[in-house]
Order: sequence, then structure tokens, then C-alpha cells
Amino acid sequence: MHVHNTGSGLHPPFGRFLCIERHDVFRIHGTSGTTGKPTAFGICRSDWRRIAEAHARIMWSFGLRPGDSLFIGSFFSLYLGSWGALLGAERLGLTSFPFGAGTPGQTLRAVTWIRDMQPTSFYGTPSYALYLAEVARGEGVDPRRDFSFHIMFFSGEPGAGVPSTKRLIEETFGAECIDGGSMAEATPWLTNCECDEKTGMHLWEDIVYTEMIDENTHEPVPSGEEGVPVYTHLDRLSQPMIRLWSADLATWTDETCACGRTYPRLPNGIYGRQDDMFIVRGENIYPSAIEGTLRGIEGFGEEFRAIISRQRSMDELRIQAEYSHAIADMPDGKEMALRRLRDEMERRLRVTLGVRAEVELVSPNTFERSEFKSRRIIDERTLSK
Amino acid sequence: MHVHNTGSGLHPPFGRFLCIERHDVFRIHGTSGTTGKPTAFGICRSDWRRIAEAHARIMWSFGLRPGDSLFIGSFFSLYLGSWGALLGAERLGLTSFPFGAGTPGQTLRAVTWIRDMQPTSFYGTPSYALYLAEVARGEGVDPRRDFSFHIMFFSGEPGAGVPSTKRLIEETFGAECIDGGSMAEATPWLTNCECDEKTGMHLWEDIVYTEMIDENTHEPVPSGEEGVPVYTHLDRLSQPMIRLWSADLATWTDETCACGRTYPRLPNGIYGRQDDMFIVRGENIYPSAIEGTLRGIEGFGEEFRAIISRQRSMDELRIQAEYSHAIADMPDGKEMALRRLRDEMERRLRVTLGVRAEVELVSPNTFERSEFKSRRIIDERTLSK
Repeated sequence: MHVHNTGSGLHPPFGRFLCIERHDVFRIHGTSGTTGKPTAFGICRSDWRRIAEAHARIMWSFGLRPGDSLFIGSFFSLYLGSWGALLGAERLGLTSFPFGAGTPGQTLRAVTWIRDMQPTSFYGTPSYALYLAEVARGEGVDPRRDFSFHIMFFSGEPGAGVPSTKRLIEETFGAECIDGGSMAEATPWLTNCECDEKTGMHLWEDIVYTEMIDENTHEPVPSGEEGVPVYTHLDRLSQPMIRLWSADLATWTDETCACGRTYPRLPNGIYGRQDDMFIVRGENIYPSAIEGTLRGIEGFGEEFRAIISRQRSMDELRIQAEYSHAIADMPDGKEMALRRLRDEMERRLRVTLGVRAEVELVSPNTFERSEFKSRRIIDERTLSK
Repeated sequence: MHVHNTGSGLHPPFGRFLCIERHDVFRIHGTSGTTGKPTAFGICRSDWRRIAEAHARIMWSFGLRPGDSLFIGSFFSLYLGSWGALLGAERLGLTSFPFGAGTPGQTLRAVTWIRDMQPTSFYGTPSYALYLAEVARGEGVDPRRDFSFHIMFFSGEPGAGVPSTKRLIEETFGAECIDGGSMAEATPWLTNCECDEKTGMHLWEDIVYTEMIDENTHEPVPSGEEGVPVYTHLDRLSQPMIRLWSADLATWTDETCACGRTYPRLPNGIYGRQDDMFIVRGENIYPSAIEGTLRGIEGFGEEFRAIISRQRSMDELRIQAEYSHAIADMPDGKEMALRRLRDEMERRLRVTLGVRAEVELVSPNTFERSEFKSRRIIDERTLSK
């Protein structure tokens, strides 16, 4: 079973489900398309307002109030995460500080600006928050003493719902760590979100109706059991999703939260995937996308391995790729050919995956041929487990 | 004579002229602070709306209409350029495609997205547009044939007002090239902007009152003569600027434009600076900031040179810096010390300047000592001349 996406591969550029006139598209966003073709989102003006309303309501539920200021430490581009946080902050009447992330040297500059401006809250990915803390300490800045965050909320990675990671973030910054986020396609993506009780993500089902479905029988699972969240927009005109299969795994409960909200909850957050997708620095990556990219490059051999590790708190993706017999047999110029091949692979992977991957070339037949795709992925991280 | 900035050095974080309560700051932006301390902008919600109104009016004047779509190819962070373009586009009812720029691999992804989404207009810097064209051609994509821009407007660099560069951009993309932009502090920064007649930038003086002042006598200069644009906000509540000295140089005229607007005009755009500031990839850089950064690093010798060149259509900044006699005299470990010194210099310069600078270390006493600061800067570009 696959994620039902917007179908943009067959009906470019916005797929079959745009549901508005093309000239009524107010904002274009998208995903870098790690499953193959990029997915484009076309969102109309009134939906943009609805996303702001929804996010403002939910941000209030975990404690943000007018008078707070929000530092947004994630990339402003296709990615709807940053924009969704900004919309909510503006609607709620916060001071927005959309600093962004991703360009060389930017985290170092962020340290200075956060220390000087003293924003009271943070949005980004858990791994970026921990990286920011590490860069700060390298500058003699203590994130707990010198920063001023009291609430930090997250999406894009499961970390903020993992007890050990939540604790680490809270101890590092002296702030409340709030887990949030469904899928970009299901935006307003904050309809899965913890309240200030931090008992797992509430499902704000009056905005996005969320069913918990058995991955085999496709029947609803009872409270206390594991299922796949399936999302239905109740309040979107453009690209509304009806029973969007997330392929995520979570356990749900109907026990009432101490906050009084009767929404269903995911006490352990979203902790797994049905398929072999993994997340590096907030980007969803499918092994098939790595494979597809490598196979399109002349000089690639036959097999590869992808190793994900965490160094200096940031995820690192390393690809070990076999080169071809043709290169192996070159009488001369082999070294130059290998260097070019590696550069080309790194360039293409960066584009397809949206994150940097370091490529290491290895001789033909280095790796065992396997029927099991998942053996190609070696995840050495512990943060998201 | 110096640029009168917001005075944030003395009165952190927003300086003496915030003029609203701190909790009424709706958006925080700023400049990376190439003169020393970063400058922070605190803008209130109603000003944010005023900026949108002003930019929408002006974008209409050069031909953008509802139904158009705007690709924004500049960085979304502190920089007000990108946000100002976005605000105007939203208010005017365009389809906004805020793609951003600046992260590794992003321009290559931009090529695919522009080809697939066919946006009708572009905002960014002239040098970035030309770089985008070059990356496109490298992918076998012809910006004139495969892209769909009919209007491209620019700020951040003088290029779009330089006849040869304007022609190059128009021929490369088959689009109208519109010059715009005053200063971040004077936002709405688009009140200097060409209309669709492209006879030089109009000064929209009902929004920002702009005087042209003799740089020595400080008296107004008559039509046809060169002066310094001095900006006064007529419609800002937060950080309103009164007679902000731009330190730019331009010649103005009161001859009516064929469009019928009676606004004063700068027929040759902004073509020079009073001081030694130069622009690299849209960032304003003062030699004093380079000097200040280097002098703060142990191991720096005494002199440096900054060479600005244009390679693959992007500006490149190279710093040749002398290392200290202490390092020169090291019995061993010198190589390691030099490598560390270079890395530290590149890292610190990146943070202070906001753009990457490549550092080359040279022996002590390589350069002549000069009383004239400007001799330290070697500008090999031709695009902005």
C-alpha cells in the first residue's frame, strides 16, 4: 500500500485534485519529491486563512499567547512546515521572527540573533534544535541560560514525541517540548499536536477528521491499538484530501486528557512507518529514490548502501555506491572518472532528496546482492527510536 | 558622512526609533550587520499591511496583474527583499511561489520547478537570475524557450538599471527587466521602481518622500544633477525614518515619463556610493567589516585585500589575508595552524558578511601598507558598472 498523493505525476502540475481554477492558486508549495516526481501544492487564499485559523487555535492549546515571540528555525521554500508555523503565529498575534535555516553559516548567525532578540518560543525539527544548541555551546552560549525559549514545538520528525529526546530538549533549553505534525498534504498539518499537558498528540478531528485504520484489514482499530492515521479534510477548498493514507504507525486512545479536550490522542506519537521511508533532517526519504537516482547515472555499478548517522547532533546520510566494471577496467584516467562520478552522484542526490548525501565509491561487487530492499538502509541513529 | 541607521547599537535590540510598544512588533527582520552590529527591524502589523499595499500598487505599474504568478528566487530570512515581494504579490492577487534561494542544490531544483510550474514573473537579484540561467543551460534547459517569465523585477544590486545588464537579462529570458529598490530601512523598499516604460526608477514620493541632496552642501540639487537620495517615510508607524541618508549616488530628473506619472525619476538608476560599500550577491559589504572581523582573529597578520570577481555569473569574494609573524616563525605545526586559521576566518567572515568569502593566507608583509582603505578592494566585475 502506498501513500495516496495528489496524483501530480499523471496530471501536472497540481494533479487531479486541485478542485479550484488554476488562477485561484494563491500559494505554490510542494515536496522535493523523494518518491520520484516532486509533488506540487496549490492552495487558495481562503484555505491559506483557514490554515492560519487552525494553527492559531492549536498553538494556543500548548500555551502560546499574544506577547510571545516565535523564532522559526526551518527552511522557507517549498516546505509547508515553516509557513504553517508563521501563519499560526501571525493569526495568534505573536511577534514572528522567520529566521529560516539551511544556508551555510546561518545557524551561527541564529545563535547571535536569538541571544540578542530573546524570542520566547521556537519552531523547527528536533534535530535542528539540538544542532543549534551545540553550535551555541561552541560559541560559549548556554541555550538554557542565554536563550529565552519557554515553549518549543516541532514537526517533521518523530523526535519530540520520543521520551528521551523530549527530555533532552527540555533539559537543554529549559523549555516545554511539544510534539506536532501530520503530513504536508494534510495541511493544516498541526491538527496532530500535543497540548500543554504533553500526553501525546491530540487529533483535532473537527479540522482534519482522522481515522485509525488497521493496516491489513482496513477496518477501524479500537482505542489502545495500533493503526495507520488516515486523514480527511473537513475545511479545505483546494486539494482537499479524502481518506489520505499516511502509512505512519501509531497507537490511539480515547481516554480524556487532563486538559479537558475529548479529542482522540496518540499517547506515543507517530512512532513508525509501514513502508521503508526514513527521515533525515525533516526530509522524507525513500530508498527507491536513492536507487532511482543512482541507476540514472552512468558509471554506477549495481549495489549501494545508505548509512544514516548522527554527528554533531545533525543527521548525516552517507551513500556507499559501487562503480561500474567499465570504470574499474579503465587503463588510465580512472581516478578522474571516479572523482567526476562521485561529484555527479552527490549533486543529483542533493537535488532528488533535498538533503546532502556524502558519496563513497566502492569497487564493483563489494556488497551482497539482496532480495530485501530494507537491508540497504543502515540507520545508526538513536534519537528517533 | 555615514548612513543613519536605526541606532540599534546603542539601544538594543530595536534602537531608539521603534516608536511602538515592544509587544506590538509583528515581524522581526534585519540586516546581517556588515557595518558592525546587526540592525534589527521591528515592524508592526498595520505597517506590514501598508508595505503590501504600496508594493501591490507599484508592481501593478510595471505590468503585473491578477492571473500572473511570481517566482521569488531570493532568501527568506532576515532580508526584507523576499518578504516585500511576497507581500505585494499576495495583495495584488498573484499566485505566489516563494521558492527562496541560498541552500546547496537549490538552484538546480529551481530549474525543474520553474520549467514545470511556468511562473510568469520573477523577483531576485540580477546576478542570481543570470546564475539561474547558467545552471538551467547546464541542464539543457533554455531559459528563453523553456521558462515563461514575461516580467522580472529586481532589487539588492544596481545591475537591472545598467543598460548592458538589462539587455543581457532580457535576451536571456525573453522578459522585461525592471529595476527597483531603495534601502531595507526605507521599506516599502519598492518606492524606487521602474514602470513598464523602463525609463529609470520613479520615486513614489507619496509613500516615501525622497529628496535628492548635494553630498557636500546638503542642499537639494536641481533636475538633471547628481545627488544622494534621502528618504522620509510618510506612512509608517514603526521605525519611521525621517531624512534617512542613503549614501547612494544618482542623477534625478523631473521630466514626465511616457507612462504619465509625474513622479521624479532616476534615469540611470542608483549607480554609485559615497562610501566604500560594495555589494556581493545582494549583501551590502563594508571593507571595515572585513577588517574588523579579521582583526578579531588571533593569527591574522596586518594587511588584507578583498577581490570581488564574477565566476559562473555569481559574485565571488576572495580575501587574501596575511598571517602573523608568530605563525610564520613556528618550528612545527605551521601547516595545521594555517589550515585552522583559514577555516576560522572563513567561518567568521561568513557570519559577519552574510556571504561566503574564500580566504587565501599569505605571508606577513606581502601587501604594501596603505593609508587609503579603498585600495584594499579590487572589484573585477563588470556587471554592475
